[in-house]
Amino acid sequence: MVAGKGSQPDGAERRLQELGIKLPTPSTPFGTYAETVQTGNLLFFSGMLPVVDHKPKYIGRLGKELDVEAGRDAAYIAALNVLASAKEHLGSLDRVTRVVRLGVFIATSGDFFNQPRVADAVSDLFRDVFGIEKTSVRLVIGVASLPLGMPIELDVIFEVAD
Amino acid sequence: MVAGKGSQPDGAERRLQELGIKLPTPSTPFGTYAETVQTGNLLFFSGMLPVVDHKPKYIGRLGKELDVEAGRDAAYIAALNVLASAKEHLGSLDRVTRVVRLGVFIATSGDFFNQPRVADAVSDLFRDVFGIEKTSVRLVIGVASLPLGMPIELDVIFEVAD
Amino acid sequence: MVAGKGSQPDGAERRLQELGIKLPTPSTPFGTYAETVQTGNLLFFSGMLPVVDHKPKYIGRLGKELDVEAGRDAAYIAALNVLASAKEHLGSLDRVTRVVRLGVFIATSGDFFNQPRVADAVSDLFRDVFGIEKTSVRLVIGVASLPLGMPIELDVIFEVAD
Repeated sequence: MVAGKGSQPDGAERRLQELGIKLPTPSTPFGTYAETVQTGNLLFFSGMLPVVDHKPKYIGRLGKELDVEAGRDAAYIAALNVLASAKEHLGSLDRVTRVVRLGVFIATSGDFFNQPRVADAVSDLFRDVFGIEKTSVRLVIGVASLPLGMPIELDVIFEVAD
Repeated sequence: MVAGKGSQPDGAERRLQELGIKLPTPSTPFGTYAETVQTGNLLFFSGMLPVVDHKPKYIGRLGKELDVEAGRDAAYIAALNVLASAKEHLGSLDRVTRVVRLGVFIATSGDFFNQPRVADAVSDLFRDVFGIEKTSVRLVIGVASLPLGMPIELDVIFEVAD
Repeated sequence: MVAGKGSQPDGAERRLQELGIKLPTPSTPFGTYAETVQTGNLLFFSGMLPVVDHKPKYIGRLGKELDVEAGRDAAYIAALNVLASAKEHLGSLDRVTRVVRLGVFIATSGDFFNQPRVADAVSDLFRDVFGIEKTSVRLVIGVASLPLGMPIELDVIFEVAD
């Protein structure tokens, strides 16, 4: 089998196409910071939020104003923003050699304990796009509040090829 | 002095024995993620919890349902899970060249400020096992809730030898 | 143009002088951990707090006991502590090649959403000292409590030259 235009046969770009996922326009910063920083083979991301067209798609806390399904959708949107920023930085998602770390911060009033199900929306997307062999470690943490009152913020590190 | 079976004279494996610490069975993930990911010489861990035999040993928040001593014991159990996962990944803890970073997330109702004493249960164990010269930076943060209602989650990075 | 005494013409040390910023005495740990750990070209920091002379300068939560301006000042003081610890580790801030990651944890009662304005106090200082081309990714997170009741904790990684 021959890979075309820099894409491996089983690469992330091809999987994205097969899954019918269209990446959003990459986020732009709300202040004096960068969406991505690469150091060596590590690509760090700013806290990725459920933002669409620079506006919050969801406002509220899990277990209070928002239910699990809303939380999962918010997490999925934030994860698409990770992929869009990665693609902008790298040119192609095929250059991602490993999802190193996934932190999922979830705004909650303190009595919501179904965080893993919300985080799975991200882990499952990354597995589908990059493959299970590139899966990350994961941290899930319920917090008091996130920027502009959004319910989800992702803390992600990728390993990338030169 | 001659080191035996891959263990240095003052190595972590020997210290574990001297301290009489028996590592638990390594944790297994609650979802589509990995317990450890190595990239270059850095070993990242999933958020380590006070889990024994895949079940929470402690449920509750510091300053509310749990006191400082329970928090310290929960933190110690989570730290043993770090060591068990590291050993499973590396084969031997003697390959750990530095504890780079230790983050301690503590579930609290917001009026508990004795976090450092809880975190010391982890820092002191790592010092005893790896030696003071390999000690980490540390972040301690009180949060609203952690997976399944557990009181402690550790965010750890080790530096490891090739 | 010739750089003097290890300082580049536009280096961070010179900018610090031009800005009239005098760094504080570096923090010392409250327990068995280190203020900084370098691994490869990455310099990790312990959670940096608004501490002056080993004592909290601010106690309280944003949106409760403290307003935005107090939060910004606390964040600024914590950021100066980052620079002081970096200088102690590196000898000169001119060795900082990139601010990789800036995490800003803000203690809040949960109904404070102006976190970006607080975080900007740090981002803007780092931009002024290191230049916009070395700016970091950023994560901002509102949490239940921080050590000793302080309002701000910074989670920072620098990339440094050999």
